[in-house]
Amino acid sequence: RIDGRRLWDSLMSFAEIGATPKGGVRRLTLSETDKRGRDRFRAECEALGLTVRVDAIGNMFARRPGRDPNRAPVLFGSHLDSQPSGGKFDGALGVLGGLEVMRSLNDLGIVTEAPLELINWTDEEGSRFGHSLMGSGVWSGIFTLDKACALTDVEGTTVGSALDAIGYRGTEPAKPFRADAYFELHIEQGPILEREDKPIGIVTGAQAMVWYDAVTIGRDSHAGTTPPSARKDALVCAARIIDLVDRMMRARGEDGRGTVGQLLVSPNSRNVVPGEVRFSVEFRHPSDAEVDKLDQEFPPAAQSIADACGVKLELTTLFKIPAQLFDPSCVDLVRQGAAKLGYSTREIVSGAGHDAVYVARHVPTAMIFTPCRDGLSHNEEESIEPGQAEAGCQVLFEAVVARANR
Amino acid sequence: RIDGRRLWDSLMSFAEIGATPKGGVRRLTLSETDKRGRDRFRAECEALGLTVRVDAIGNMFARRPGRDPNRAPVLFGSHLDSQPSGGKFDGALGVLGGLEVMRSLNDLGIVTEAPLELINWTDEEGSRFGHSLMGSGVWSGIFTLDKACALTDVEGTTVGSALDAIGYRGTEPAKPFRADAYFELHIEQGPILEREDKPIGIVTGAQAMVWYDAVTIGRDSHAGTTPPSARKDALVCAARIIDLVDRMMRARGEDGRGTVGQLLVSPNSRNVVPGEVRFSVEFRHPSDAEVDKLDQEFPPAAQSIADACGVKLELTTLFKIPAQLFDPSCVDLVRQGAAKLGYSTREIVSGAGHDAVYVARHVPTAMIFTPCRDGLSHNEEESIEPGQAEAGCQVLFEAVVARANR
Ligand SMILES: NC(=O)NCCC(=O)O
Ligand SMILES: NC(=O)NCCC(=O)O
Repeated sequence: RIDGRRLWDSLMSFAEIGATPKGGVRRLTLSETDKRGRDRFRAECEALGLTVRVDAIGNMFARRPGRDPNRAPVLFGSHLDSQPSGGKFDGALGVLGGLEVMRSLNDLGIVTEAPLELINWTDEEGSRFGHSLMGSGVWSGIFTLDKACALTDVEGTTVGSALDAIGYRGTEPAKPFRADAYFELHIEQGPILEREDKPIGIVTGAQAMVWYDAVTIGRDSHAGTTPPSARKDALVCAARIIDLVDRMMRARGEDGRGTVGQLLVSPNSRNVVPGEVRFSVEFRHPSDAEVDKLDQEFPPAAQSIADACGVKLELTTLFKIPAQLFDPSCVDLVRQGAAKLGYSTREIVSGAGHDAVYVARHVPTAMIFTPCRDGLSHNEEESIEPGQAEAGCQVLFEAVVARANR
Repeated sequence: RIDGRRLWDSLMSFAEIGATPKGGVRRLTLSETDKRGRDRFRAECEALGLTVRVDAIGNMFARRPGRDPNRAPVLFGSHLDSQPSGGKFDGALGVLGGLEVMRSLNDLGIVTEAPLELINWTDEEGSRFGHSLMGSGVWSGIFTLDKACALTDVEGTTVGSALDAIGYRGTEPAKPFRADAYFELHIEQGPILEREDKPIGIVTGAQAMVWYDAVTIGRDSHAGTTPPSARKDALVCAARIIDLVDRMMRARGEDGRGTVGQLLVSPNSRNVVPGEVRFSVEFRHPSDAEVDKLDQEFPPAAQSIADACGVKLELTTLFKIPAQLFDPSCVDLVRQGAAKLGYSTREIVSGAGHDAVYVARHVPTAMIFTPCRDGLSHNEEESIEPGQAEAGCQVLFEAVVARANR
């Protein structure tokens, strides 16, 4: 039904926007490169006859009318921003797969009962401004537009000024509207489907997570003259907290996740005992109770390390998302679509956060996963097969059309 | 004899070049700011009738003729570059103190028997290109001019192109010439003189050190989906090596030094398990034998940590400097100068590296230390009293004139 070859060409061509030497992409949210991606997306939507709206946080909605204008639309989509050195498929598969669904419906002359809306959410990755799922988070009322617009990147640029700079501060209010369902197609970004050789993952929900910002504050001093007793080394303190995060993760077995992904040293000079280190910390677990425990244990344990190092610790919780179950009727439409097409499937809980998690608080939601090579994502070498993209997109088509015509 | 007020004014006025908000300076070697400092220094030397030469690595020599042109010159000086967020006195005291010596000799109408040369060494700090004592190191033949010119900063700029960009690639060969002695005045950068209330430190030598570059190479992957068993976290590995460096230092008691001052994470994104970390490591100790032991123990200990983390470690030795004893006759001139002026003194081994350490391999050398507040250096809050600068400069004057007239 959908055209797998056309989908693949569209993925490859889109991946030229922000292409990196090792075959990945760098399309940081609200950057000039993101603008080029957005402009291309808008042009392709309009060429298909869709009407594009942009909301106040830059989320883009491309609408295809249904036979019954009074019915709530069926939503689907994902995100076009990427990690600083990210892969070609993380997010793009869901948006460009959605575009292929729209194209195929046009080709087939199908008009669905309910209208359809294809969405590109702003700043899903969170790597630039520190809040993943930002656009869907504002839309869902998880945090306010003002708070989001005031977030800054490491250069001090705010979300608000970045939106203005690329011309994507839209006029629509960023808040839930009446919608019938939301479907998101995404690569798994983990090893499970590949290991079990399942082309389709039926995503039943997503795990819980908590993100922090940490700053250790010691005192810059000369590496050659400052004796051990006089040191207040912010980096030694941060290093011990990094080790703590890893140990707390491993104490939870294979379901635990604990990561320090970002860290900046100041003054960052070879012969200076570091006076300040800023770093991120995050924990995840499928169980809310475990994330609650991690969130209770971590701050005092990190504080004891800082005390022992004679270093000050500032710890801020950025956000905490409980585990989210998806809507059984939507999940079932994914299951039925895959079954109809004869794909072998597996139920799976998402390890990554997705816009679908926030949208699910307002709109019945489900997700479709496809495998990726070695379970590798957030890596320039992230890779999938054309047939895997096609299968995922075909299931999305089935679920969307079934829902819109029910 | 010297004018303490004039010296202080000159220190304060020079500190405006590259001044930072917290009262320090940022005058990274071979930067535009360094060029402004060099241009000012050259102009002030020429105004005093000195002849300025620049060698192939940018070291500057300002010569004052002696009565006997055949005698080898007496050298003195220090450096005008600074740490990224450094203090106003580290290096500047020795160069501007030297300028005050020249000025006072002019005022007093003194012509010394031997010629005098005041030196500004290039890149003493090492923070930009990774080799401290670079200009004096090339001059002393510790490393070749070609090797030095090929060193790069984090942006990939080479020393050679930075020299050209600021117009300080001189025509003189960078190598030892016939010289009678070298004296360097510097702040102690440590707590000893202040603690014992001694205005003058008679520096008998400097401690040994070894510097490394380390890279840990794991694999970028998604923080939410990558289970503990599949992680190759380059930052967790680096963190454990940072802890090792600190523990190896502390095992040596108060004489040990071990520091990781610089560290860069890649891709440095909150929700990505870091795939690569580049960082500096250095150890110091007054005893060569201890530095040899540290240099033997550290690589295999770091390698075991990397093996346990499933991460690759690349470790490169940048340089190793043995402990250096200064010349007894020059040290004695410092002792006599301080005694003549009635200053209470203390013999001291330098914790920091200084250009004097390399010069001492070719020319009889000694150093003079003055206290600094809280022993704090490589910090914007580094601070000294005008009287302390004056005392150090006066002792420099005595030692230089005594040597040149002997
Ligand atoms: N899907 C994805 O990579 N989302 C980024 C947010 C997260 O860290 O889970
Ligand atoms: N004096 C001084 O700070 N030198 C820098 C080289 C070192 O790290 O010791």
